[in-house]
Amino acid sequence: MHRTITGFSNPTVKFLRSLREKKHRKQEKRFLAEGLRLLTDARESGRLPEMLAMATKREAHPLLDALIADVTAAGGEVLEMDEEILTKVTGKDNPQAVAGVFAEFDTGLENLDRSKAPIWLVAQALRDPGNLGTMLRTGDAVGAGGLILIDDCADPFSVEAVRASMGAVFTQSIAQARWEDFIGWLRAGDGQLVAASLRDSTDYRTAPYASPCFLMVGNESRGLPAEYEDACDLRVTMPMLGRADSLNAAVAGAVLAYEALAHLRWKP
Amino acid sequence: MHRTITGFSNPTVKFLRSLREKKHRKQEKRFLAEGLRLLTDARESGRLPEMLAMATKREAHPLLDALIADVTAAGGEVLEMDEEILTKVTGKDNPQAVAGVFAEFDTGLENLDRSKAPIWLVAQALRDPGNLGTMLRTGDAVGAGGLILIDDCADPFSVEAVRASMGAVFTQSIAQARWEDFIGWLRAGDGQLVAASLRDSTDYRTAPYASPCFLMVGNESRGLPAEYEDACDLRVTMPMLGRADSLNAAVAGAVLAYEALAHLRWKP
Repeated sequence: MHRTITGFSNPTVKFLRSLREKKHRKQEKRFLAEGLRLLTDARESGRLPEMLAMATKREAHPLLDALIADVTAAGGEVLEMDEEILTKVTGKDNPQAVAGVFAEFDTGLENLDRSKAPIWLVAQALRDPGNLGTMLRTGDAVGAGGLILIDDCADPFSVEAVRASMGAVFTQSIAQARWEDFIGWLRAGDGQLVAASLRDSTDYRTAPYASPCFLMVGNESRGLPAEYEDACDLRVTMPMLGRADSLNAAVAGAVLAYEALAHLRWKP
Repeated sequence: MHRTITGFSNPTVKFLRSLREKKHRKQEKRFLAEGLRLLTDARESGRLPEMLAMATKREAHPLLDALIADVTAAGGEVLEMDEEILTKVTGKDNPQAVAGVFAEFDTGLENLDRSKAPIWLVAQALRDPGNLGTMLRTGDAVGAGGLILIDDCADPFSVEAVRASMGAVFTQSIAQARWEDFIGWLRAGDGQLVAASLRDSTDYRTAPYASPCFLMVGNESRGLPAEYEDACDLRVTMPMLGRADSLNAAVAGAVLAYEALAHLRWKP
């Protein structure tokens, strides 16, 4: 369905704008993704927006035509509006902007098939949405099964996280869980829990990674709680040759993930 | 020297605030770093602020006392001000905030001693200050000689980059150069130029890294220009098993840097 929106006070405009805030995303169970490239990534991953918002006078583009056709065929809405109204929705002064509203998804631990991938990423109390999106992007690159978010993490459906994920938010499974639930689920089946740590640890290059391997990184300032480290099957250490004793969380996760991939890729 | 500032319109307050903008940083050749931890990292790396700003009623702290003593001994200024004024300077509503003004430094290619480290990081047109700061932090961790910024990069002295560097902005050499100057300098001595690339490339795990190894990453959206890739001694490829064909720039640099480190660390 096509619809043209003409006023700032239109309830749909208010709804779209409200999705920039976590509180409203959680209430509505919906999130915004912006940009033709990101929306095309979503479409090609089998995820279509329920609503598509763009400027009335936006230039045509074959990828946009394809998106409009698919959204319409799936019963979604295509909303056209003045550039000024679109700017209010996207927060960007870009008349070529396109935004889509998607239903949130949380796979839930119980629906994860741990045998489907050798690597899984786990983030604990990760607070920066850019780091979270970057971990999703890395997970896509290493063929991870998904990202499990432990305790109080940034919202994977925030505009910043979605943008940093470069589309991986649509391809990676995402499950959110408390630590107790996660560790209970993990121990009910196969799975090696691995964390970078400074104590009792093995060189990350020669460590005995085993599939399915769950690579866990902690909060940006505090790292992992000691009891979470204790619960790991393997603690690995990376060289830290300078003054600092830690890497950026998303970087640490990626260095570990690529190392584990090199060990596990050709193994069953 | 201690000084108490009482008005918002004080020229020093205006000066401090102005350093949040690149234009003023370049004019003044000064930058701001915030937080007691970061300022302590600077002090322990032998870099002292010329000015130190804090709230009049800030709680005492041994690390702050040490900083004040060193700044004073070095002839710097310690500025105390109302919390409201400090908030204007730091942009943060935190009465415990401390900010320091540092002289910018650009080592200049001609002053880099390429034999001092096996790994150097090179960023080309990197636009995100968080990515830039993260690369500095990674450089510190892998014992890199420094970060060379090619073409139009984000400002390494922006508040965001300084914060993301976690102190590495004070320990890593930073040189800014145009491509032509960089490649001329590089070819005038030893040095292997390496980039991640999708064409004519070698598996990054088995590639013949050689010291001093210059690891180059490109712009966040466009990657490296083809002619820059052509000029590399080695093009390496990392597995990309998902939908996307690239990693976050700072992540790609870190995965490469840790790989090269594993190859070069125990070699002369």
